[in-house]
Amino acid sequence: MIHPFSIAIHGGAGTITKSMLTPKLELEYKEALKASISAGYLILKQGGSGLDAVQASIVYLEDCPLFNAGKGAVFNSIGKHEMDAAIMEGQFLKAGAVSSVQNVKNPIILARTVMDKSEHVFLTANGALEFAKTKNIEIADDEYFFVQNRYDQWQSLKDTDNYNLDHVAEKGEKKFGTVGAVALDSFGNLAAATSTGGMTNKKYGRVGDSPIIGAGTYANNNTCAISCTGHGELFIRSVVAYDISCLMEYKGLSLKQACDIVVYDKLVKIEGEGGLIAIDFNGNIELPFNSEGMYRASIDNTGDLFIGIYK
Amino acid sequence: MIHPFSIAIHGGAGTITKSMLTPKLELEYKEALKASISAGYLILKQGGSGLDAVQASIVYLEDCPLFNAGKGAVFNSIGKHEMDAAIMEGQFLKAGAVSSVQNVKNPIILARTVMDKSEHVFLTANGALEFAKTKNIEIADDEYFFVQNRYDQWQSLKDTDNYNLDHVAEKGEKKFGTVGAVALDSFGNLAAATSTGGMTNKKYGRVGDSPIIGAGTYANNNTCAISCTGHGELFIRSVVAYDISCLMEYKGLSLKQACDIVVYDKLVKIEGEGGLIAIDFNGNIELPFNSEGMYRASIDNTGDLFIGIYK
Repeated sequence: MIHPFSIAIHGGAGTITKSMLTPKLELEYKEALKASISAGYLILKQGGSGLDAVQASIVYLEDCPLFNAGKGAVFNSIGKHEMDAAIMEGQFLKAGAVSSVQNVKNPIILARTVMDKSEHVFLTANGALEFAKTKNIEIADDEYFFVQNRYDQWQSLKDTDNYNLDHVAEKGEKKFGTVGAVALDSFGNLAAATSTGGMTNKKYGRVGDSPIIGAGTYANNNTCAISCTGHGELFIRSVVAYDISCLMEYKGLSLKQACDIVVYDKLVKIEGEGGLIAIDFNGNIELPFNSEGMYRASIDNTGDLFIGIYK
Repeated sequence: MIHPFSIAIHGGAGTITKSMLTPKLELEYKEALKASISAGYLILKQGGSGLDAVQASIVYLEDCPLFNAGKGAVFNSIGKHEMDAAIMEGQFLKAGAVSSVQNVKNPIILARTVMDKSEHVFLTANGALEFAKTKNIEIADDEYFFVQNRYDQWQSLKDTDNYNLDHVAEKGEKKFGTVGAVALDSFGNLAAATSTGGMTNKKYGRVGDSPIIGAGTYANNNTCAISCTGHGELFIRSVVAYDISCLMEYKGLSLKQACDIVVYDKLVKIEGEGGLIAIDFNGNIELPFNSEGMYRASIDNTGDLFIGIYK
């Protein structure tokens, strides 16, 4: 019997309100979200793995300059693009992650390769790039990552001590630029993946929750698959993704109950702004966020497509 | 009322048997463990914080060439010392961590400084070193980290594709060189810290579980403080430290029950060799390991000192 399959993606959470997006830009985001989730869903429909599905959805978002991951990644304090990514599967709990990698066209493919073709889980910085080269992972020059509005964002912060989770923090607005995908495939296997360019003007090799297994990314066939987007430091300290899994496994909560406690209670209490996408072993989908908005989409196990941006 | 306080430390787990250590070396290890735990215990006794106590114990172990952390850190594939460390406190769940840092004399002090004096939790590689310099963290040249037997271990693996969790893997033996400390202070606050030099001849900026909040290091006043040592990749995938905390918080298990399930059942099933040190909010101490040995010591809330190496 083929297991019912489903998939969800996000393109970041934060202060995203209708007044901030032109109708044209809103349409562009929605079309990109639809194309991304369709790429992953097609793989599931053809009997492919959840891992391949989440990877395909993330690659689309990494290649799209609208999102802060891959092409579209923000500039750090010295004008470079430092990216993090992680992927995990729920059957054997295999995982791969990279932090602070430069010039890798698709960091999620590098994370997948760490999982599949190394004895390690987590590689960082120049070492991760060196590994990428030995595995013929596609490298892109700095020019590929140049996106004008990201550059303008950086210019407005450059030579200050301010950093920025994605953009417009100078107006007290925050957007947590990250992309993520979770899927349940027709074999009943869960998978999760997350990729990010981090914070504009970030210094010191800062790493957020995205590449941290248990914090920003987690998958376990016994419970759920999770990908987070939000204020990374607070998500790390809260071990958000594994917390949801544990609330299900050890306390017997449903996916919705676990997500509600973590996103609307625990994170809110510590001002941990953001959200996440989640799928459980039955294909139930939750897309909770405590910020103004979250770019998100899902296709449930009846084939119904949902696309959302605002509350 | 002063809360009863207690502390525990480890200096790594693995294939450590009586036949491997000369009586002289065994004595040196025991004296070092005693000096390290005494440094932390003194702080607790004088009414200091658990954070300061675990930091003091780790600094001693980092400065001691017997252990794979700070001075004594193993050589990576290009003859450098790349170190990881993390620290966390259980009252506000504040944390600091660094990965792949070079030339920092005491990585645990850098992790503490990330926690206390940055808005971030996790910094990596050159960026972390740059941050260290802005905070006047003590830098040491490569010569400081040179320890002859670590160099000899590296020479035996250099120019091969083999790496080594600490040493003697060529004989099928494994030692997970890491140091850690957990403490409950007289205010009832828990703290945990871990520091490591990683694997001999490691490539690609490999990061293990030590600096991963939730995997190798975790503290929460509601449950426990944990520092792990073992096969890092499997400890990351198992989110070991937070798993113990969740088994206590969500399933109502005692510290001992939670440790037993994780170390002797869950980790054994996936061949996750290693161990951990744990203290709960009542000061109960557990020092479980599924390997041949683990360098370890504890002083419980009656003041009793325990030092152990073998099973």
